[in-house]
Amino acid sequence: MQGNSLNLANNSERKKPMPSPEELLAARYGQPATWTPPQWNETLDVIHQHRSVRRWLDKPVDDDTIRTIISAAQSAGTSSNKQVISVIVVKDPELRKGLAEITRQMFPHLEQVPAVLIWLIDYSRISAVAEREGLPTGALDYLDEAALGFLDAGIAAQNAAIAAESLGLGTLYLGSVRNDAEAVQKLLGLPPEIVPVVGLEIGHADPSEPAGIKPRLPQEAILHWDTYTEKNLELIDSYDHALDTYYSRYGQHQLWSKQTAHRAASKSITKTNRQFLRRVLERAGFGLR
Amino acid sequence: MQGNSLNLANNSERKKPMPSPEELLAARYGQPATWTPPQWNETLDVIHQHRSVRRWLDKPVDDDTIRTIISAAQSAGTSSNKQVISVIVVKDPELRKGLAEITRQMFPHLEQVPAVLIWLIDYSRISAVAEREGLPTGALDYLDEAALGFLDAGIAAQNAAIAAESLGLGTLYLGSVRNDAEAVQKLLGLPPEIVPVVGLEIGHADPSEPAGIKPRLPQEAILHWDTYTEKNLELIDSYDHALDTYYSRYGQHQLWSKQTAHRAASKSITKTNRQFLRRVLERAGFGLR
Repeated sequence: MQGNSLNLANNSERKKPMPSPEELLAARYGQPATWTPPQWNETLDVIHQHRSVRRWLDKPVDDDTIRTIISAAQSAGTSSNKQVISVIVVKDPELRKGLAEITRQMFPHLEQVPAVLIWLIDYSRISAVAEREGLPTGALDYLDEAALGFLDAGIAAQNAAIAAESLGLGTLYLGSVRNDAEAVQKLLGLPPEIVPVVGLEIGHADPSEPAGIKPRLPQEAILHWDTYTEKNLELIDSYDHALDTYYSRYGQHQLWSKQTAHRAASKSITKTNRQFLRRVLERAGFGLR
Repeated sequence: MQGNSLNLANNSERKKPMPSPEELLAARYGQPATWTPPQWNETLDVIHQHRSVRRWLDKPVDDDTIRTIISAAQSAGTSSNKQVISVIVVKDPELRKGLAEITRQMFPHLEQVPAVLIWLIDYSRISAVAEREGLPTGALDYLDEAALGFLDAGIAAQNAAIAAESLGLGTLYLGSVRNDAEAVQKLLGLPPEIVPVVGLEIGHADPSEPAGIKPRLPQEAILHWDTYTEKNLELIDSYDHALDTYYSRYGQHQLWSKQTAHRAASKSITKTNRQFLRRVLERAGFGLR
Protein backbone atom coordinates (compact mmCIF):
# COMPACT_ATOMS: atom_id res chain seq x y z
CA MET A 1 0.00 0.00 0.00
CA GLN A 2 1.23 3.46 -0.86
CA GLY A 3 0.86 5.72 2.17
CA ASN A 4 0.67 8.72 -0.11
CA SER A 5 -2.46 7.33 -1.68
CA LEU A 6 -4.13 8.17 1.64
CA ASN A 7 -3.58 11.89 1.23
CA LEU A 8 -7.25 12.54 0.73
CA ALA A 9 -9.81 15.12 1.53
CA ASN A 10 -12.66 13.38 3.28
CA ASN A 11 -16.12 12.52 2.16
CA SER A 12 -17.63 14.75 -0.47
CA GLU A 13 -14.30 15.88 -1.87
CA ARG A 14 -12.51 12.56 -1.88
CA LYS A 15 -11.68 10.64 -4.99
CA LYS A 16 -12.69 7.05 -5.63
CA PRO A 17 -11.67 4.39 -4.87
CA MET A 18 -12.16 4.73 -1.14
CA PRO A 19 -9.42 3.15 0.94
CA SER A 20 -10.56 -0.06 2.64
CA PRO A 21 -10.72 -0.34 6.45
CA GLU A 22 -7.55 -2.45 6.28
CA GLU A 23 -5.77 0.30 4.32
CA LEU A 24 -6.94 2.98 6.74
CA LEU A 25 -5.77 1.00 9.76
CA ALA A 26 -2.43 0.21 8.11
CA ALA A 27 -1.92 3.93 7.50
CA ARG A 28 -2.97 4.80 11.06
CA TYR A 29 -0.46 2.42 12.62
CA GLY A 30 2.21 2.43 9.90
CA GLN A 31 1.82 -1.35 9.76
CA PRO A 32 -1.02 -3.79 9.07
CA ALA A 33 -3.55 -4.06 11.89
CA THR A 34 -3.50 -7.18 14.04
CA TRP A 35 -7.30 -7.55 13.98
CA THR A 36 -10.14 -7.30 11.47
CA PRO A 37 -13.02 -4.92 12.22
CA PRO A 38 -16.22 -7.01 12.35
CA GLN A 39 -18.27 -4.05 11.02
CA TRP A 40 -17.47 -0.82 9.24
CA ASN A 41 -19.45 2.28 8.25
CA GLU A 42 -19.25 5.86 6.95
CA THR A 43 -18.63 7.33 10.41
CA LEU A 44 -15.68 5.01 11.04
CA ASP A 45 -14.34 6.09 7.64
CA VAL A 46 -14.54 9.75 8.64
CA ILE A 47 -12.90 9.14 12.02
CA HIS A 48 -10.05 7.00 10.68
CA GLN A 49 -9.32 9.36 7.78
CA HIS A 50 -8.53 12.24 10.14
CA ARG A 51 -5.41 14.23 9.35
CA SER A 52 -4.25 17.68 10.43
CA VAL A 53 -4.73 20.32 7.72
CA ARG A 54 -2.38 23.30 7.54
CA ARG A 55 -3.11 24.60 4.04
CA TRP A 56 -6.54 26.02 3.24
CA LEU A 57 -8.45 26.99 0.13
CA ASP A 58 -9.77 30.55 -0.03
CA LYS A 59 -13.36 29.42 0.40
CA PRO A 60 -15.71 30.31 3.26
CA VAL A 61 -17.64 28.00 5.58
CA ASP A 62 -21.17 29.31 5.90
CA ASP A 63 -22.65 30.21 9.28
CA ASP A 64 -25.39 27.58 9.21
CA THR A 65 -22.76 24.88 8.67
CA ILE A 66 -20.93 26.24 11.73
CA ARG A 67 -24.19 26.19 13.72
CA THR A 68 -24.61 22.53 12.73
CA ILE A 69 -21.06 21.79 13.88
CA ILE A 70 -21.84 23.51 17.21
CA SER A 71 -25.08 21.55 17.70
CA ALA A 72 -22.94 18.44 17.19
CA ALA A 73 -20.61 19.68 19.95
CA GLN A 74 -23.55 20.32 22.26
CA SER A 75 -24.88 16.81 21.58
CA ALA A 76 -21.88 15.21 23.29
CA GLY A 77 -21.94 14.13 26.91
CA THR A 78 -21.23 16.83 29.48
CA SER A 79 -20.18 16.18 33.11
CA SER A 80 -23.31 16.21 35.31
CA ASN A 81 -24.98 18.22 32.51
CA LYS A 82 -23.11 21.28 33.84
CA GLN A 83 -22.37 22.55 30.30
CA VAL A 84 -19.36 24.65 31.29
CA ILE A 85 -18.15 24.98 27.69
CA SER A 86 -18.66 28.03 25.45
CA VAL A 87 -17.13 28.69 22.04
CA ILE A 88 -16.11 31.71 19.97
CA VAL A 89 -16.13 31.40 16.19
CA VAL A 90 -13.36 33.66 14.94
CA LYS A 91 -13.85 34.68 11.30
CA ASP A 92 -12.55 38.25 11.30
CA PRO A 93 -9.18 38.40 9.44
CA GLU A 94 -7.65 40.89 11.90
CA LEU A 95 -8.53 38.66 14.86
CA ARG A 96 -7.11 35.62 13.06
CA LYS A 97 -3.94 37.57 12.45
CA GLY A 98 -3.86 38.39 16.15
CA LEU A 99 -4.25 34.70 16.97
CA ALA A 100 -1.41 33.88 14.56
CA GLU A 101 0.86 36.31 16.42
CA ILE A 102 -0.06 34.83 19.81
CA THR A 103 0.25 31.20 18.74
CA ARG A 104 3.41 31.74 16.64
CA GLN A 105 2.66 29.18 13.93
CA MET A 106 5.33 28.13 11.46
CA PHE A 107 2.85 28.21 8.56
CA PRO A 108 0.34 30.95 7.71
CA HIS A 109 -2.72 28.72 8.13
CA LEU A 110 -4.45 31.07 10.58
CA GLU A 111 -4.41 33.80 7.95
CA GLN A 112 -5.93 31.41 5.38
CA VAL A 113 -8.51 29.46 7.34
CA PRO A 114 -12.09 30.80 7.16
CA ALA A 115 -13.02 29.97 10.76
CA VAL A 116 -11.34 29.09 14.05
CA LEU A 117 -13.41 27.81 16.97
CA ILE A 118 -11.94 28.76 20.34
CA TRP A 119 -13.21 26.43 23.06
CA LEU A 120 -13.67 28.02 26.47
CA ILE A 121 -14.20 26.91 30.04
CA ASP A 122 -17.05 29.24 30.98
CA TYR A 123 -18.27 29.05 34.55
CA SER A 124 -20.16 32.34 34.24
CA ARG A 125 -23.55 30.65 33.74
CA ILE A 126 -23.12 28.58 36.89
CA SER A 127 -21.87 31.58 38.85
CA ALA A 128 -24.94 33.56 37.72
CA VAL A 129 -27.46 30.90 38.74
CA ALA A 130 -25.63 30.26 42.02
CA GLU A 131 -25.82 33.96 42.81
CA ARG A 132 -29.53 33.99 42.00
CA GLU A 133 -30.04 31.01 44.33
CA GLY A 134 -27.92 32.63 47.03
CA LEU A 135 -25.52 29.66 47.01
CA PRO A 136 -21.70 29.61 47.10
CA THR A 137 -19.67 28.05 44.24
CA GLY A 138 -17.40 26.06 46.52
CA ALA A 139 -16.76 23.35 43.90
CA LEU A 140 -14.68 25.96 42.04
CA ASP A 141 -12.11 25.69 44.83
CA TYR A 142 -11.14 22.17 43.79
CA LEU A 143 -8.82 21.06 41.02
CA ASP A 144 -11.44 18.55 39.88
CA GLU A 145 -13.69 21.33 38.64
CA ALA A 146 -10.97 22.75 36.38
CA ALA A 147 -9.98 19.24 35.20
CA LEU A 148 -13.62 18.62 34.30
CA GLY A 149 -13.55 21.77 32.17
CA PHE A 150 -10.57 20.59 30.12
CA LEU A 151 -12.11 17.13 29.75
CA ASP A 152 -15.47 18.51 28.62
CA ALA A 153 -13.78 20.94 26.22
CA GLY A 154 -12.07 17.96 24.57
CA ILE A 155 -15.32 15.99 24.35
CA ALA A 156 -17.23 18.90 22.80
CA ALA A 157 -14.44 19.97 20.43
CA GLN A 158 -13.98 16.43 19.10
CA ASN A 159 -17.67 16.12 18.25
CA ALA A 160 -17.28 19.39 16.34
CA ALA A 161 -14.18 18.07 14.56
CA ILE A 162 -15.91 14.85 13.47
CA ALA A 163 -19.02 16.76 12.36
CA ALA A 164 -16.86 19.10 10.26
CA GLU A 165 -14.87 16.24 8.74
CA SER A 166 -18.08 14.35 7.93
CA LEU A 167 -19.08 17.40 5.87
CA GLY A 168 -15.86 17.19 3.85
CA LEU A 169 -14.13 19.98 5.79
CA GLY A 170 -10.65 19.81 7.26
CA THR A 171 -9.63 20.59 10.85
CA LEU A 172 -6.57 21.53 12.90
CA TYR A 173 -6.32 21.66 16.68
CA LEU A 174 -4.46 24.63 18.13
CA GLY A 175 -3.23 23.87 21.64
CA SER A 176 -1.06 26.92 21.06
CA VAL A 177 -3.91 29.21 22.17
CA ARG A 178 -2.57 28.34 25.64
CA ASN A 179 0.85 29.73 24.66
CA ASP A 180 -0.54 33.01 25.93
CA ALA A 181 -4.07 32.53 27.23
CA GLU A 182 -4.14 36.04 28.68
CA ALA A 183 -3.37 37.58 25.28
CA VAL A 184 -6.18 35.48 23.77
CA GLN A 185 -8.54 36.73 26.48
CA LYS A 186 -7.61 40.31 25.63
CA LEU A 187 -7.87 39.82 21.86
CA LEU A 188 -11.31 38.18 21.97
CA GLY A 189 -12.84 40.33 24.72
CA LEU A 190 -12.98 37.49 27.22
CA PRO A 191 -13.49 38.45 30.84
CA PRO A 192 -10.88 36.87 33.15
CA GLU A 193 -13.49 34.32 34.32
CA ILE A 194 -13.39 32.62 30.90
CA VAL A 195 -10.47 30.31 30.07
CA PRO A 196 -9.43 29.56 26.47
CA VAL A 197 -8.56 25.85 26.21
CA VAL A 198 -7.90 24.91 22.61
CA GLY A 199 -8.59 26.18 19.09
CA LEU A 200 -10.02 24.24 16.17
CA GLU A 201 -9.45 25.54 12.65
CA ILE A 202 -12.18 24.56 10.18
CA GLY A 203 -12.05 25.06 6.43
CA HIS A 204 -11.68 23.51 3.01
CA ALA A 205 -8.39 21.62 2.80
CA ASP A 206 -6.07 22.57 -0.05
CA PRO A 207 -5.81 19.24 -1.92
CA SER A 208 -2.22 20.08 -2.93
CA GLU A 209 -1.05 19.72 0.68
CA PRO A 210 0.89 16.47 0.92
CA ALA A 211 0.18 15.63 4.60
CA GLY A 212 -1.41 12.23 5.12
CA ILE A 213 -2.70 10.05 7.93
CA LYS A 214 -0.09 10.16 10.67
CA PRO A 215 0.75 6.85 12.35
CA ARG A 216 0.05 6.45 16.06
CA LEU A 217 1.59 4.23 18.73
CA PRO A 218 0.84 0.51 18.26
CA GLN A 219 -2.52 -0.24 19.81
CA GLU A 220 -1.00 -2.72 22.26
CA ALA A 221 1.16 0.13 23.67
CA ILE A 222 -1.88 2.02 24.96
CA LEU A 223 -4.58 -0.66 25.39
CA HIS A 224 -4.92 -2.80 28.52
CA TRP A 225 -7.47 -5.48 29.35
CA ASP A 226 -8.98 -5.58 32.86
CA THR A 227 -5.77 -4.57 34.57
CA TYR A 228 -2.82 -2.32 33.82
CA THR A 229 0.18 -4.23 32.54
CA GLU A 230 3.54 -2.59 31.97
CA LYS A 231 4.50 -2.36 28.28
CA ASN A 232 8.00 -2.77 26.97
CA LEU A 233 10.03 -0.15 25.14
CA GLU A 234 10.17 -2.30 22.02
CA LEU A 235 6.68 -1.06 21.14
CA ILE A 236 8.05 2.49 21.17
CA ASP A 237 11.02 1.48 19.03
CA SER A 238 8.60 -0.04 16.53
CA TYR A 239 6.65 3.24 16.55
CA ASP A 240 9.84 5.28 16.08
CA HIS A 241 10.39 3.26 12.93
CA ALA A 242 6.79 3.65 11.67
CA LEU A 243 6.74 7.41 12.20
CA ASP A 244 10.19 7.89 10.68
CA THR A 245 9.04 5.97 7.60
CA TYR A 246 6.00 8.26 7.38
CA TYR A 247 8.11 11.43 7.65
CA SER A 248 10.70 10.13 5.19
CA ARG A 249 8.03 10.45 2.45
CA TYR A 250 8.27 14.20 2.99
CA GLY A 251 12.05 14.21 3.12
CA GLN A 252 12.10 14.49 6.91
CA HIS A 253 13.43 12.27 9.66
CA GLN A 254 11.96 12.25 13.14
CA LEU A 255 12.07 9.74 15.94
CA TRP A 256 9.04 10.07 18.21
CA SER A 257 10.99 9.05 21.30
CA LYS A 258 13.64 11.74 20.83
CA GLN A 259 11.18 14.43 19.76
CA THR A 260 8.85 13.71 22.67
CA ALA A 261 11.64 13.48 25.24
CA HIS A 262 12.88 16.90 24.13
CA ARG A 263 9.36 18.34 24.29
CA ALA A 264 8.97 17.02 27.83
CA ALA A 265 12.10 18.82 28.96
CA SER A 266 11.05 22.10 30.59
CA LYS A 267 12.73 24.27 27.97
CA SER A 268 9.90 24.59 25.45
CA ILE A 269 7.20 25.43 28.00
CA THR A 270 9.24 28.20 29.61
CA LYS A 271 9.68 29.83 26.20
CA THR A 272 5.99 30.74 26.17
CA ASN A 273 3.43 32.03 28.65
CA ARG A 274 1.99 28.52 28.74
CA GLN A 275 3.90 28.24 32.00
CA PHE A 276 1.38 30.70 33.49
CA LEU A 277 -1.79 28.66 32.91
CA ARG A 278 -2.13 28.32 36.67
CA ARG A 279 -2.39 32.09 37.02
CA VAL A 280 -5.02 32.21 34.26
CA LEU A 281 -7.13 29.61 36.05
CA GLU A 282 -6.71 31.32 39.42
CA ARG A 283 -7.85 34.64 37.96
CA ALA A 284 -10.83 32.78 36.54
CA GLY A 285 -11.76 31.81 40.10
CA PHE A 286 -10.48 28.22 40.17
CA GLY A 287 -8.90 27.41 43.53
CA LEU A 288 -7.04 24.30 42.22
CA ARG A 289 -7.02 22.91 45.74
CA MET B 1 -43.34 16.41 17.53
CA GLN B 2 -43.52 13.78 20.25
CA GLY B 3 -40.30 13.82 22.25
CA ASN B 4 -40.86 10.20 23.16
CA SER B 5 -40.66 9.20 19.54
CA LEU B 6 -36.94 10.02 19.81
CA ASN B 7 -36.33 7.28 22.34
CA LEU B 8 -34.35 5.25 19.89
CA ALA B 9 -31.44 2.92 19.80
CA ASN B 10 -29.05 4.19 17.17
CA ASN B 11 -28.26 2.92 13.76
CA SER B 12 -28.66 -0.77 13.19
CA GLU B 13 -31.16 -1.22 15.99
CA ARG B 14 -33.33 1.82 15.31
CA LYS B 15 -36.78 1.62 13.90
CA LYS B 16 -37.88 3.43 10.78
CA PRO B 17 -38.75 6.16 10.08
CA MET B 18 -35.56 7.99 10.95
CA PRO B 19 -36.12 11.34 12.62
CA SER B 20 -35.33 14.24 10.32
CA PRO B 21 -32.49 16.69 11.12
CA GLU B 22 -35.15 19.21 12.17
CA GLU B 23 -36.66 16.68 14.59
CA LEU B 24 -33.25 15.80 16.02
CA LEU B 25 -32.34 19.45 16.57
CA ALA B 26 -35.76 20.20 18.11
CA ALA B 27 -35.22 17.32 20.55
CA ARG B 28 -31.65 18.48 21.31
CA TYR B 29 -32.74 21.99 22.21
CA GLY B 30 -36.28 21.28 23.44
CA GLN B 31 -37.48 23.77 20.84
CA PRO B 32 -37.23 24.13 17.04
CA ALA B 33 -33.77 25.13 15.80
CA THR B 34 -33.30 28.69 14.59
CA TRP B 35 -31.33 27.60 11.50
CA THR B 36 -31.50 24.92 8.82
CA PRO B 37 -28.47 22.65 8.31
CA PRO B 38 -27.29 23.11 4.70
CA GLN B 39 -26.09 19.48 4.56
CA TRP B 40 -26.73 16.36 6.59
CA ASN B 41 -25.28 12.84 6.70
CA GLU B 42 -25.11 9.56 8.61
CA THR B 43 -22.37 10.80 10.96
CA LEU B 44 -24.38 13.88 11.94
CA ASP B 45 -27.30 11.53 12.62
CA VAL B 46 -25.15 9.41 14.94
CA ILE B 47 -23.78 12.47 16.77
CA HIS B 48 -27.13 14.20 17.23
CA GLN B 49 -28.89 11.01 18.37
CA HIS B 50 -26.57 10.63 21.36
CA ARG B 51 -28.24 9.80 24.66
CA SER B 52 -26.89 8.37 27.91
CA VAL B 53 -27.72 4.69 28.36
CA ARG B 54 -28.17 3.27 31.86
CA ARG B 55 -29.91 -0.04 31.09
CA TRP B 56 -28.08 -2.73 29.16
CA LEU B 57 -28.97 -5.97 27.43
CA ASP B 58 -27.10 -9.09 28.54
CA LYS B 59 -25.13 -9.26 25.29
CA PRO B 60 -21.35 -9.01 24.90
CA VAL B 61 -19.34 -6.62 22.73
CA ASP B 62 -16.65 -8.62 20.97
CA ASP B 63 -12.97 -7.74 21.39
CA ASP B 64 -12.38 -6.84 17.74
CA THR B 65 -15.20 -4.31 17.93
CA ILE B 66 -13.50 -2.82 20.99
CA ARG B 67 -10.17 -2.72 19.10
CA THR B 68 -11.95 -0.83 16.29
CA ILE B 69 -13.36 1.63 18.83
CA ILE B 70 -9.84 2.13 20.23
CA SER B 71 -8.32 2.70 16.79
CA ALA B 72 -10.99 5.38 16.36
CA ALA B 73 -9.82 6.95 19.63
CA GLN B 74 -6.20 6.86 18.47
CA SER B 75 -7.18 8.51 15.17
CA ALA B 76 -8.16 11.73 16.96
CA GLY B 77 -5.81 14.67 17.30
CA THR B 78 -3.34 14.51 20.20
CA SER B 79 -1.45 17.52 21.61
CA SER B 80 1.97 17.73 19.92
CA ASN B 81 1.52 14.01 19.10
CA LYS B 82 2.52 13.27 22.70
CA GLN B 83 -0.09 10.49 23.02
CA VAL B 84 -0.34 10.62 26.80
CA ILE B 85 -3.60 8.64 26.88
CA SER B 86 -3.91 4.93 27.69
CA VAL B 87 -7.09 2.95 28.24
CA ILE B 88 -8.16 -0.12 30.23
CA VAL B 89 -11.08 -2.17 28.94
CA VAL B 90 -12.80 -3.59 32.00
CA LYS B 91 -14.88 -6.67 31.21
CA ASP B 92 -14.38 -8.80 34.34
CA PRO B 93 -17.62 -8.85 36.40
CA GLU B 94 -15.80 -8.61 39.74
CA LEU B 95 -13.86 -5.55 38.59
CA ARG B 96 -17.05 -3.94 37.29
CA LYS B 97 -18.64 -4.61 40.68
CA GLY B 98 -15.63 -2.95 42.29
CA LEU B 99 -16.09 0.08 40.02
CA ALA B 100 -19.78 0.20 40.94
CA GLU B 101 -18.84 0.37 44.63
CA ILE B 102 -16.31 3.14 44.02
CA THR B 103 -18.54 5.22 41.77
CA ARG B 104 -21.70 4.67 43.85
CA GLN B 105 -24.19 4.62 40.99
CA MET B 106 -27.92 4.82 41.65
CA PHE B 107 -28.64 2.16 39.01
CA PRO B 108 -26.90 -1.21 38.53
CA HIS B 109 -25.63 -0.40 35.02
CA LEU B 110 -22.00 -1.22 35.84
CA GLU B 111 -23.04 -4.76 36.78
CA GLN B 112 -24.92 -5.12 33.47
CA VAL B 113 -22.68 -3.42 30.93
CA PRO B 114 -20.33 -5.76 29.01
CA ALA B 115 -17.38 -3.31 28.86
CA VAL B 116 -16.18 -0.11 30.51
CA LEU B 117 -13.28 1.83 29.04
CA ILE B 118 -11.28 3.68 31.68
CA TRP B 119 -9.34 6.56 30.11
CA LEU B 120 -5.98 7.29 31.69
CA ILE B 121 -3.41 10.06 31.66
CA ASP B 122 -0.28 7.95 31.20
CA TYR B 123 3.01 9.81 31.20
CA SER B 124 4.99 6.58 31.66
CA ARG B 125 5.96 6.32 27.97
CA ILE B 126 7.34 9.86 27.97
CA SER B 127 9.15 9.30 31.27
CA ALA B 128 10.71 6.14 29.84
CA VAL B 129 11.99 7.78 26.65
CA ALA B 130 13.19 10.85 28.58
CA GLU B 131 15.15 8.59 30.88
CA ARG B 132 16.66 6.79 27.91
CA GLU B 133 17.66 10.15 26.40
CA GLY B 134 19.04 11.36 29.71
CA LEU B 135 16.63 14.31 29.72
CA PRO B 136 14.52 15.74 32.57
CA THR B 137 10.70 15.87 32.33
CA GLY B 138 10.39 19.46 33.47
CA ALA B 139 7.15 20.05 31.57
CA LEU B 140 5.51 17.80 34.16
CA ASP B 141 6.02 20.55 36.72
CA TYR B 142 3.48 22.80 35.02
CA LEU B 143 -0.30 22.74 35.28
CA ASP B 144 -0.53 22.95 31.48
CA GLU B 145 0.77 19.41 31.13
CA ALA B 146 -1.95 17.99 33.37
CA ALA B 147 -4.60 20.14 31.66
CA LEU B 148 -3.45 18.78 28.31
CA GLY B 149 -3.96 15.26 29.66
CA PHE B 150 -7.60 15.91 30.59
CA LEU B 151 -8.21 17.64 27.24
CA ASP B 152 -6.68 14.79 25.25
CA ALA B 153 -8.58 12.19 27.28
CA GLY B 154 -11.81 13.94 26.28
CA ILE B 155 -10.81 14.09 22.62
CA ALA B 156 -9.89 10.39 22.50
CA ALA B 157 -12.86 9.19 24.55
CA GLN B 158 -15.33 11.09 22.40
CA ASN B 159 -14.00 9.51 19.20
CA ALA B 160 -14.51 6.15 20.91
CA ALA B 161 -18.05 7.12 21.92
CA ILE B 162 -19.00 8.16 18.38
CA ALA B 163 -17.40 5.05 16.90
CA ALA B 164 -19.38 2.85 19.31
CA GLU B 165 -22.64 4.69 18.65
CA SER B 166 -22.08 4.45 14.87
CA LEU B 167 -21.99 0.66 15.37
CA GLY B 168 -25.39 0.72 17.07
CA LEU B 169 -23.96 0.48 20.59
CA GLY B 170 -24.87 2.72 23.51
CA THR B 171 -22.51 4.66 25.78
CA LEU B 172 -22.39 6.28 29.20
CA TYR B 173 -19.67 8.55 30.55
CA LEU B 174 -18.60 7.93 34.14
CA GLY B 175 -16.95 11.02 35.60
CA SER B 176 -17.55 9.25 38.89
CA VAL B 177 -14.32 7.26 38.46
CA ARG B 178 -12.79 10.44 39.94
CA ASN B 179 -14.99 10.04 43.05
CA ASP B 180 -12.09 7.96 44.34
CA ALA B 181 -9.30 7.85 41.79
CA GLU B 182 -6.95 6.16 44.27
CA ALA B 183 -9.39 3.29 44.79
CA VAL B 184 -9.65 2.91 40.99
CA GLN B 185 -5.85 2.83 40.76
CA LYS B 186 -5.77 0.06 43.37
CA LEU B 187 -8.61 -1.93 41.79
CA LEU B 188 -7.13 -1.89 38.27
CA GLY B 189 -3.48 -2.32 39.22
CA LEU B 190 -2.52 1.18 38.13
CA PRO B 191 0.81 2.49 39.36
CA PRO B 192 0.50 5.94 41.02
CA GLU B 193 1.96 7.53 37.86
CA ILE B 194 -1.24 6.75 35.94
CA VAL B 195 -4.31 8.93 36.49
CA PRO B 196 -7.85 7.67 35.79
CA VAL B 197 -9.82 10.48 34.14
CA VAL B 198 -13.21 9.22 33.03
CA GLY B 199 -15.00 5.95 32.26
CA LEU B 200 -17.06 5.10 29.20
CA GLU B 201 -19.55 2.24 29.40
CA ILE B 202 -20.19 0.52 26.08
CA GLY B 203 -22.89 -2.05 25.39
CA HIS B 204 -26.20 -2.85 23.76
CA ALA B 205 -28.88 -0.47 25.02
CA ASP B 206 -31.98 -2.07 26.50
CA PRO B 207 -34.69 -0.70 24.17
CA SER B 208 -37.17 -0.68 27.05
CA GLU B 209 -35.27 2.17 28.74
CA PRO B 210 -37.34 5.32 28.31
CA ALA B 211 -34.48 7.90 28.32
CA GLY B 212 -34.37 10.09 25.24
CA ILE B 213 -32.30 12.91 23.77
CA LYS B 214 -31.71 15.39 26.58
CA PRO B 215 -32.08 19.07 25.69
CA ARG B 216 -29.05 21.33 26.00
CA LEU B 217 -28.70 25.08 26.56
CA PRO B 218 -29.93 27.21 23.64
CA GLN B 219 -27.12 27.51 21.13
CA GLU B 220 -27.01 31.31 21.48
CA ALA B 221 -26.21 30.85 25.19
CA ILE B 222 -22.87 29.21 24.44
CA LEU B 223 -21.95 30.44 20.92
CA HIS B 224 -20.16 33.75 20.29
CA TRP B 225 -19.04 35.30 17.01
CA ASP B 226 -15.60 36.93 16.83
CA THR B 227 -15.79 38.35 20.32
CA TYR B 228 -17.23 37.31 23.66
CA THR B 229 -20.56 38.96 24.38
CA GLU B 230 -22.32 38.59 27.71
CA LYS B 231 -25.53 36.55 27.50
CA ASN B 232 -28.63 37.29 29.50
CA LEU B 233 -30.24 35.01 32.08
CA GLU B 234 -33.41 34.72 30.00
CA LEU B 235 -31.65 32.09 27.90
CA ILE B 236 -31.16 30.04 31.05
CA ASP B 237 -34.80 30.52 32.05
CA SER B 238 -35.82 29.25 28.64
CA TYR B 239 -33.55 26.22 29.15
CA ASP B 240 -34.99 25.58 32.61
CA HIS B 241 -38.37 25.33 30.91
CA ALA B 242 -37.12 23.06 28.09
CA LEU B 243 -35.39 20.64 30.46
CA ASP B 244 -38.30 20.59 32.89
CA THR B 245 -40.63 19.72 29.99
CA TYR B 246 -38.27 16.89 29.02
CA TYR B 247 -38.16 15.50 32.58
CA SER B 248 -41.92 15.84 33.04
CA ARG B 249 -42.34 13.06 30.46
CA TYR B 250 -40.75 10.76 33.03
CA GLY B 251 -42.81 12.15 35.90
CA GLN B 252 -39.90 14.24 37.20
CA HIS B 253 -39.39 17.96 37.65
CA GLN B 254 -35.96 19.55 37.55
CA LEU B 255 -34.81 23.08 36.91
CA TRP B 256 -31.28 23.15 35.50
CA SER B 257 -30.43 26.41 37.22
CA LYS B 258 -31.35 25.13 40.70
CA GLN B 259 -29.81 21.69 40.16
CA THR B 260 -26.56 23.14 38.82
CA ALA B 261 -26.30 25.81 41.49
CA HIS B 262 -26.66 23.13 44.15
CA ARG B 263 -24.04 20.96 42.43
CA ALA B 264 -21.63 23.91 42.36
CA ALA B 265 -21.93 24.38 46.09
CA SER B 266 -18.97 22.65 47.73
CA LYS B 267 -21.12 20.11 49.57
CA SER B 268 -21.29 17.39 46.91
CA ILE B 269 -17.56 17.37 46.13
CA THR B 270 -16.57 17.05 49.77
CA LYS B 271 -18.82 14.00 50.12
CA THR B 272 -16.42 12.02 47.90
CA ASN B 273 -12.67 11.70 47.48
CA ARG B 274 -13.01 13.77 44.32
CA GLN B 275 -11.75 16.61 46.52
CA PHE B 276 -8.34 14.85 46.54
CA LEU B 277 -7.68 14.86 42.78
CA ARG B 278 -4.80 17.24 43.40
CA ARG B 279 -3.08 14.65 45.58
CA VAL B 280 -3.61 11.99 42.89
CA LEU B 281 -1.97 14.20 40.28
CA GLU B 282 0.90 15.15 42.58
CA ARG B 283 1.59 11.47 43.30
CA ALA B 284 1.59 10.92 39.55
CA GLY B 285 4.44 13.43 39.29
CA PHE B 286 2.51 16.50 38.10
CA GLY B 287 3.82 19.66 39.75
CA LEU B 288 0.72 21.75 38.90
CA ARG B 289 2.86 24.87 39.10
